[in-house]
Amino acid sequence: MTSGTAEIPSADEVVTVADVAAARERLADVVHRTPLDRSTTFAERSGAASVGLKLENVQRTGSFKLRGAYNRMAKLSPAERDRGVVTASAGNHAQGVALAGRLLDVETTVVVPEVTPAAKIEATRGYGAEVLVEGDIYEDSYRRALELADEAGPTFVHPFDDADVIAGQGTVGLELVEQYPEVDTAVVAVGGGGLVAGIATVLKDRDPDVRVVGVQPEGAAHAKPSLDAGEIRDLPGVDTVAEGIADTRMLPKTFGVARERVDDVVSVSDREASAAVALLAERAKTVAEAAGAVPLAAILSDDLDVTDEHVALVVSGGNVDLADHADLVRTGLSALGRRVEARLAVADWPAGLDAVAATVADRGADLAGLERARPTAADDPNRTPVTVEVTGTGPDHLREVLTALDSRDGVAVADDDL
Amino acid sequence: MTSGTAEIPSADEVVTVADVAAARERLADVVHRTPLDRSTTFAERSGAASVGLKLENVQRTGSFKLRGAYNRMAKLSPAERDRGVVTASAGNHAQGVALAGRLLDVETTVVVPEVTPAAKIEATRGYGAEVLVEGDIYEDSYRRALELADEAGPTFVHPFDDADVIAGQGTVGLELVEQYPEVDTAVVAVGGGGLVAGIATVLKDRDPDVRVVGVQPEGAAHAKPSLDAGEIRDLPGVDTVAEGIADTRMLPKTFGVARERVDDVVSVSDREASAAVALLAERAKTVAEAAGAVPLAAILSDDLDVTDEHVALVVSGGNVDLADHADLVRTGLSALGRRVEARLAVADWPAGLDAVAATVADRGADLAGLERARPTAADDPNRTPVTVEVTGTGPDHLREVLTALDSRDGVAVADDDL
Repeated sequence: MTSGTAEIPSADEVVTVADVAAARERLADVVHRTPLDRSTTFAERSGAASVGLKLENVQRTGSFKLRGAYNRMAKLSPAERDRGVVTASAGNHAQGVALAGRLLDVETTVVVPEVTPAAKIEATRGYGAEVLVEGDIYEDSYRRALELADEAGPTFVHPFDDADVIAGQGTVGLELVEQYPEVDTAVVAVGGGGLVAGIATVLKDRDPDVRVVGVQPEGAAHAKPSLDAGEIRDLPGVDTVAEGIADTRMLPKTFGVARERVDDVVSVSDREASAAVALLAERAKTVAEAAGAVPLAAILSDDLDVTDEHVALVVSGGNVDLADHADLVRTGLSALGRRVEARLAVADWPAGLDAVAATVADRGADLAGLERARPTAADDPNRTPVTVEVTGTGPDHLREVLTALDSRDGVAVADDDL
Repeated sequence: MTSGTAEIPSADEVVTVADVAAARERLADVVHRTPLDRSTTFAERSGAASVGLKLENVQRTGSFKLRGAYNRMAKLSPAERDRGVVTASAGNHAQGVALAGRLLDVETTVVVPEVTPAAKIEATRGYGAEVLVEGDIYEDSYRRALELADEAGPTFVHPFDDADVIAGQGTVGLELVEQYPEVDTAVVAVGGGGLVAGIATVLKDRDPDVRVVGVQPEGAAHAKPSLDAGEIRDLPGVDTVAEGIADTRMLPKTFGVARERVDDVVSVSDREASAAVALLAERAKTVAEAAGAVPLAAILSDDLDVTDEHVALVVSGGNVDLADHADLVRTGLSALGRRVEARLAVADWPAGLDAVAATVADRGADLAGLERARPTAADDPNRTPVTVEVTGTGPDHLREVLTALDSRDGVAVADDDL
């Protein structure tokens, strides 16, 4: 699908660095100046001269979205404030709007689709918003929110296609250049494009040679086709674990800024995103949602070369249920070849478990799980099927462990996912 | 068991703030100045005026231990450097010594007990140390390391009972007072006492009214009995998930500093420590090992009142295997009453699963796990046993979910761990 281009504004018509500077003053006592954490490990792994992680996952509400929402809502007239605001979002934008409303004493209504997890609804209510559960999918909730804005008078706060929202997100860029002035390339997740548009506005104003690269998940990769075509392309649907950036399209304002100020957009797979979540937890000790990890995934992929550059990765959010985070980490370790699930055939049950445990330990690996499995038609009826979960330092190590298991008397590796 | 007190030095004989200032100069280009992250959530939950998290879990090597090890080793004479150093540690101190050795071009040997996980050995080798696996328990490895220091000439680097090590750890305190000058109370984990002695030296010099509180796990709580008795008491053994602080005793230097400069020591259970690990991940988006989470556990317990104070929590380390971290989080959510494992008896299998899933979802909870269980003698043979894992907002919420499940036709709750 395509949309027209006639209505696309120029970048300067949408937002300038002066707008971002004004936003910063409005936000001064509201948002955290989030840390910039250097990572030697990620620099070594990517070949970069240095890597700085801009940790918006420790921003209030757990993501950068508060910046844009607050900046937009702080500019409402007294009359508009009295009528409240409405938006549609199942995620970080909802929490940003809700907290901004509480801080500004503005009533907020958030429409979420029926599939929204209860925990996200509770978090949004916890910040003081009224939550309406309406719509099978996000687009339905979005339309309902627009109707409410028409009917009752509250102002609709768009999650990204709004000059004040973009200017608010741009304040991340102002902090970034202070904390990491040597930055050569900034890598930023792209959903609807508000964050990357805001940051690019700051960085390109300061130095046009600084590179700004957007990252999307393969299952929601609309930005590069749009920028290549010179017009907004939208997707019929999305399919990605990075739900924070699972948008189908940019809109005129973000597209107008991005086409002038964003140098490139790359995409990463959900497996790569999961691996990046695991590495951020293990190496940077930080809890990121998948959308917050895609910049790291990008510099570790072959699609984005950052050799000898000073690279800023914006970790945009950390709103992930802890059980979901643990699952992402597990998937990520598998994607990195540091975890394997294998099905063993054990001749001498349960005595043969001794050989299994000893073999794994002797090779310096960890037996993260072990279970007697139910037999399938493929199993030898004279052996006991056992599934094991083994973690190690990498694929070579795990292959060595599996080979050692397979060569033990009475133990055979029937299948593995390495 | 008790030890004598005759040999206990005064605090000033061990370390002064001038020693810490000198250490800071040595460490200037070596260690990260770690972030101080404010937490509104933890302030609200503890009644504190504010809470600042000093994030030594993002220090190089994943803990504060590099500071003391490097400061000690930087002061070796050229001849001593040529002969190398040796230590005993299965954990953070080993990695600190190993990296300090690489940075200072000093050969390092680390003796670890046989039970040490392969991943920890690999991490230490990765920093360039030679690792000797010797000894059933840590005390054996410790003795072996002392023998090596005698035999071959390398210098033994003690993990805590060393003035230069204490001075190095104290640099955490210098950063803390710059980043959080309003601090009223600093809460610090205590293993052998090196970190708390160093930090207390800085804080008490600056303002004797600042309170310094140590925290130990109940399974390794030797410091309070020692300070109360006025002499070092040691434990026959330790039993705690907080392995980073699983020490049996303080030693003369740390005890000598602590008895003058540490105001109090409290203890927390392993369940409380697990809950704090979960809350740090969920709320502060940071990955802490159990030893790094005990200060938060302390201010959330009834044993430490921080009402209306500005409280610094030193998150001392983050070296925890990701699978172990996920398990700690799960335990912690159970301890917080936000997760329950229940055994159901389902009349109509598998159709009855519909009722189970719908009931959990309708109440806004999450069905984190579901499994058909093997029957026990206690089960009704005319029902199918099913175990479920349910997460929710708290014990009241989960009790409501269990009651709703129990009142469904064809579903009964046979048992639960709430």
